[in-house]
Amino acid sequence: MVMRKVDLRSDTVTKPTEAMRAAMATAEVDDDVLGHDPTARRLEKEIAKAMGKEAGLFVPSGTMGNLISVLIHCDVRGSEVILGDYCHIHIYENGGISTIGGVHPRTVKNNEDGTMDIDQIEAAIRDPNFEICYPKTKLICLENSHAHSGGRCLSAEYTDRVGELAKKYGLKLHIDGARIFHASVALGVPVHRLVQAADSVSVCLSKGLGAPVGSVIVGSESFIAKAKILRKTLGGGMRQVGVLCAAALVAFQENVGKLEEDHRKAKTLAEGLNKIKGLKVDIDSVETNIVFFDIKKETNISETKLCKILEGYGILALPEGPFRMRLVLHHQISESDVQYSLSCIQQALTGVRDENGGI
Amino acid sequence: MVMRKVDLRSDTVTKPTEAMRAAMATAEVDDDVLGHDPTARRLEKEIAKAMGKEAGLFVPSGTMGNLISVLIHCDVRGSEVILGDYCHIHIYENGGISTIGGVHPRTVKNNEDGTMDIDQIEAAIRDPNFEICYPKTKLICLENSHAHSGGRCLSAEYTDRVGELAKKYGLKLHIDGARIFHASVALGVPVHRLVQAADSVSVCLSKGLGAPVGSVIVGSESFIAKAKILRKTLGGGMRQVGVLCAAALVAFQENVGKLEEDHRKAKTLAEGLNKIKGLKVDIDSVETNIVFFDIKKETNISETKLCKILEGYGILALPEGPFRMRLVLHHQISESDVQYSLSCIQQALTGVRDENGGI
Amino acid sequence: MVMRKVDLRSDTVTKPTEAMRAAMATAEVDDDVLGHDPTARRLEKEIAKAMGKEAGLFVPSGTMGNLISVLIHCDVRGSEVILGDYCHIHIYENGGISTIGGVHPRTVKNNEDGTMDIDQIEAAIRDPNFEICYPKTKLICLENSHAHSGGRCLSAEYTDRVGELAKKYGLKLHIDGARIFHASVALGVPVHRLVQAADSVSVCLSKGLGAPVGSVIVGSESFIAKAKILRKTLGGGMRQVGVLCAAALVAFQENVGKLEEDHRKAKTLAEGLNKIKGLKVDIDSVETNIVFFDIKKETNISETKLCKILEGYGILALPEGPFRMRLVLHHQISESDVQYSLSCIQQALTGVRDENGGI
Amino acid sequence: MVMRKVDLRSDTVTKPTEAMRAAMATAEVDDDVLGHDPTARRLEKEIAKAMGKEAGLFVPSGTMGNLISVLIHCDVRGSEVILGDYCHIHIYENGGISTIGGVHPRTVKNNEDGTMDIDQIEAAIRDPNFEICYPKTKLICLENSHAHSGGRCLSAEYTDRVGELAKKYGLKLHIDGARIFHASVALGVPVHRLVQAADSVSVCLSKGLGAPVGSVIVGSESFIAKAKILRKTLGGGMRQVGVLCAAALVAFQENVGKLEEDHRKAKTLAEGLNKIKGLKVDIDSVETNIVFFDIKKETNISETKLCKILEGYGILALPEGPFRMRLVLHHQISESDVQYSLSCIQQALTGVRDENGGI
Repeated sequence: MVMRKVDLRSDTVTKPTEAMRAAMATAEVDDDVLGHDPTARRLEKEIAKAMGKEAGLFVPSGTMGNLISVLIHCDVRGSEVILGDYCHIHIYENGGISTIGGVHPRTVKNNEDGTMDIDQIEAAIRDPNFEICYPKTKLICLENSHAHSGGRCLSAEYTDRVGELAKKYGLKLHIDGARIFHASVALGVPVHRLVQAADSVSVCLSKGLGAPVGSVIVGSESFIAKAKILRKTLGGGMRQVGVLCAAALVAFQENVGKLEEDHRKAKTLAEGLNKIKGLKVDIDSVETNIVFFDIKKETNISETKLCKILEGYGILALPEGPFRMRLVLHHQISESDVQYSLSCIQQALTGVRDENGGI
Repeated sequence: MVMRKVDLRSDTVTKPTEAMRAAMATAEVDDDVLGHDPTARRLEKEIAKAMGKEAGLFVPSGTMGNLISVLIHCDVRGSEVILGDYCHIHIYENGGISTIGGVHPRTVKNNEDGTMDIDQIEAAIRDPNFEICYPKTKLICLENSHAHSGGRCLSAEYTDRVGELAKKYGLKLHIDGARIFHASVALGVPVHRLVQAADSVSVCLSKGLGAPVGSVIVGSESFIAKAKILRKTLGGGMRQVGVLCAAALVAFQENVGKLEEDHRKAKTLAEGLNKIKGLKVDIDSVETNIVFFDIKKETNISETKLCKILEGYGILALPEGPFRMRLVLHHQISESDVQYSLSCIQQALTGVRDENGGI
Repeated sequence: MVMRKVDLRSDTVTKPTEAMRAAMATAEVDDDVLGHDPTARRLEKEIAKAMGKEAGLFVPSGTMGNLISVLIHCDVRGSEVILGDYCHIHIYENGGISTIGGVHPRTVKNNEDGTMDIDQIEAAIRDPNFEICYPKTKLICLENSHAHSGGRCLSAEYTDRVGELAKKYGLKLHIDGARIFHASVALGVPVHRLVQAADSVSVCLSKGLGAPVGSVIVGSESFIAKAKILRKTLGGGMRQVGVLCAAALVAFQENVGKLEEDHRKAKTLAEGLNKIKGLKVDIDSVETNIVFFDIKKETNISETKLCKILEGYGILALPEGPFRMRLVLHHQISESDVQYSLSCIQQALTGVRDENGGI
Repeated sequence: MVMRKVDLRSDTVTKPTEAMRAAMATAEVDDDVLGHDPTARRLEKEIAKAMGKEAGLFVPSGTMGNLISVLIHCDVRGSEVILGDYCHIHIYENGGISTIGGVHPRTVKNNEDGTMDIDQIEAAIRDPNFEICYPKTKLICLENSHAHSGGRCLSAEYTDRVGELAKKYGLKLHIDGARIFHASVALGVPVHRLVQAADSVSVCLSKGLGAPVGSVIVGSESFIAKAKILRKTLGGGMRQVGVLCAAALVAFQENVGKLEEDHRKAKTLAEGLNKIKGLKVDIDSVETNIVFFDIKKETNISETKLCKILEGYGILALPEGPFRMRLVLHHQISESDVQYSLSCIQQALTGVRDENGGI
């Protein structure tokens, strides 16, 4: 008997669907470095249109999407970017904006809801009168939804206010939209409205939307022209890339509509976890497809231990910090997977407690 | 009637075959960033084995393969790389090793056959006794076959001698193997023998081998472990990348055997061109799948003009310099395409001459 | 009549004394790039000895001292440094460690006393198990005394604890010792004891010690050997630099003993300011030669306005933030200058209030 | 008896004169980072005026002067500079423009007279139509006089032609003027005329002019404004720097007039060397204060050996390559030192030959 497998580590683990594979098998392609791959062009146009921006560019990952965007807005030596102290760019992207791009990051505290206080952002903007010892602030970055806060959403109004601040000081605004469609669905606000104030957005297609590979960055025509060159420099220029873009197009067309269900499953999971003795979930913070939960210390079960136990049930999860775990829902996790997971976690907790620490 | 189209700009323009598309449609995949995609693993192992190296890593492009390799061998600030003044890394990769990687390049003259004189390489190695004002030489790069010399091949013996020099001075040797299989086939030497002296090789699968996307870099286990991190930093970490690797595996298994034929077609083309009045080809220099030819100035036809004229016949080609053109053969150019191209080029030259410069 | 001038902007404004100028006029010198300048050597040895380190190197500024130190400890691409969010390196040095050095900074909150919480530092150290997406933590930086907290001192015990943490994780510890002698004098602890746990220290001679130009960085022999090369790269290698080092030697020999007096004058100034209606000083925070004071908002006098008014009295000062000013004492500010400054500030405050906001 | 010492390694070894030391002892100074040091301002103005440029900035070394200049002209990521393959910036400055500045160098062959062929420079300029894979050419660098060719001079006409080329392509022109006054004196052309076509010049005061420390970079007001910030970033901002500038002013005022004599002594030395059996000098190449000479292989005396032997006579010299040496004249080498050196070298050569290789 094959063990059931439920992979809740991330929504990056989704497998391409039959429709995506079929699309890859028939995609019209061309050399996208020498000229234009028609399928890439189609995907880039569709995503740009959805985001209300002039143009788009396919890149192999969200990390490259963010890296290119930050580096273009900060193309002059001596630039500084303001970003959240727990945003993905600062924490999970190898510090590439500095180590590869030479951009100096200035962090502002991320609140529990993923926002940064507007006045703290403003205070972090460098006074050009002291440029003799200050880097030059060029860019503000937001992340929507915000992964490290458990997938919470930034409202259009908040984003607009940050955008106004950026404009006031002649800065650019980039949004890491790894899960921007989740935010759009959760808030009930069209996605282009959410990024209206942004000069660039990195939109991921291989997370919740389920494409095997890729993100699209969007912005003005001139931004994208520069992005294409920098993509080549970084080694992200790909030849018959239409095979990937065909799958990404299917992902975009078929799976945005499924996100609402993923959010519902996340709520179900969160509520179920909260009922398990020894666990604690802040239900209100579960706005999209990510569920963080805390293990009470009296259980004596560390996050690493729980991960290990769950692996024995075929359930994969990632630790988020000491006595803290994260589970991520996506279109290949069924309602029944959620129930199975809850019952395994329940058992893991009980088992351990019964046996004084072992299971 | 649809015009015949013969794309001789590069071997990067090949379209994925039916077998590749079928492989993509059925590839077993997993999240290659969180863990290991099984198809990527298979490809990486096969290429590493063919090259006689411990391990391999799939990257989205040859440019990224070279960039990662150079940056890992030159991981300490203040490093210098010795490379040919007309190698691909120096001329066609946006200067990324400096502008992104902070590595200082020191060039040595590329001879007509793509080699650099061994004594000139040795003279370029910095004396560590003068480290107070010298960068630190860390790496030598070769390119085999060498694109800018028209695809000429470096022998195993030459490469070994450079390898010995590198070892003598404690340097690493990287080979840009964008077309290493072409060299192997043309020289009749197993590919692993050709790169025996190298610490790393970047092997392209989307040029002559015809895969839609991708290269594999090979080297020691520890080199590849570092490469995986740097690939992530640059944004080259892809999720269900097995869809691309499946196609690349087919390319590797099916198309190495076809390179010999490509070389034959190149010879045919070269000989045909040499018979056209107004053109000149160094036949002996056509060792693999690339043909350079010179347009005599008395024809009054610049390389740009000839490209333009040929486009009217459905033939795509790239200028290589003033009054110099390049044509590249690959498995999707037939013997008949070669004959068609020759007759169109003949006509272009004659037409122009007849009409005193216009056509 | 010439107006009295009291420059309280910084202790960098000190003028070289007669003794320093005489030393410069007679200094034994040599080419310090080609070989060794004897006076530079003497200064470097004396400072290294005072700091209890193996070797020292003269650099043109504290900024270069910090830049070299951080870049050497973080010499491999992909490195991260942990440092205070209001330390001098992060705020006032143009972000050079990133924009010139490609090092990624990770900040930890600076407490009011200039420390960072040990557990927050520990939490900021990257887990090498996640190196696939994390930069590599290589270095922790402290600043003693800490300028942005008003010159407060880090105890030997605190520094030791940070040093133990660094050692536990295989990290280096650098101390920005722009005013390390002030800390030593204020705490009554020998300066070498204060930096015992550090791998490198940047010691400034042109701030409170009054030399016209220069800092010395100290550390192990091998650290200094690398520093000498990087100093050359940055353009900090100077020829007959002994002329500067001679003045710095005098500064070191004559002025450490005067710092206690500077601290006393700072206390007097602070207490005087606290008695002026409309101002507020945290007396306990005045540990060394820097005095911060807040202007109450009801005075309607902004920090810029007060600077302007004081300039009219010949008193120079710098704003520290909204309604906040800083004054810095040094050996060329006399007790009488302090009294004069207090009476001018008193008058400035009263004048404005009397006339409803104008003066 | 003290041995006579003649230091011919470089003109950087000059010791400050009494007049310079006196000037340092009385220089009017101020904090040049917070505001303006009056003596620095005076020096910067005088040098800018002499060079016919709007403004100047004192920097601690010629290396920093070149580094700042190249980095400002190439301030956008992805820039390339064209420069001679044996120019000082490329060979002797640690590769800082790449390893610190991320600028990609493209070298053109330096002819024996220090020029680069104009058409080779033009051929090296990147075609912006291929920016997808090319770096962006932003700058051309010349060096006048050219150290590695033995101090040969670039004429005003040659420089103008390079300047026109630069203008034609929208590039900047920087001149490394480490010994620009030598060129001016040797050519009999005012120094401002020699650099008329340049956007920036780095002028050294601590080589032939004999100041203990420093260079001045000159250019437009806006260039210098940017240079001041970058100087601070690199750590080249110094406080009461007037003490150095005072000496540099004396150097500028007193020593330009002595260069002609240095050139004469160089000729004398060259002619003397040429008469020594076993040596060979290209007399015509001795245009300024540098003398290269070749040791014939039949002497069996390597350049290192000869350096060693001469050290025994108190004569310091530097090897320039295999069986090649360089000697540099300056105002502290007398006519009698030249004669002494010639007789020692004669003896060294003869001694060795008499004793079959030993001395």
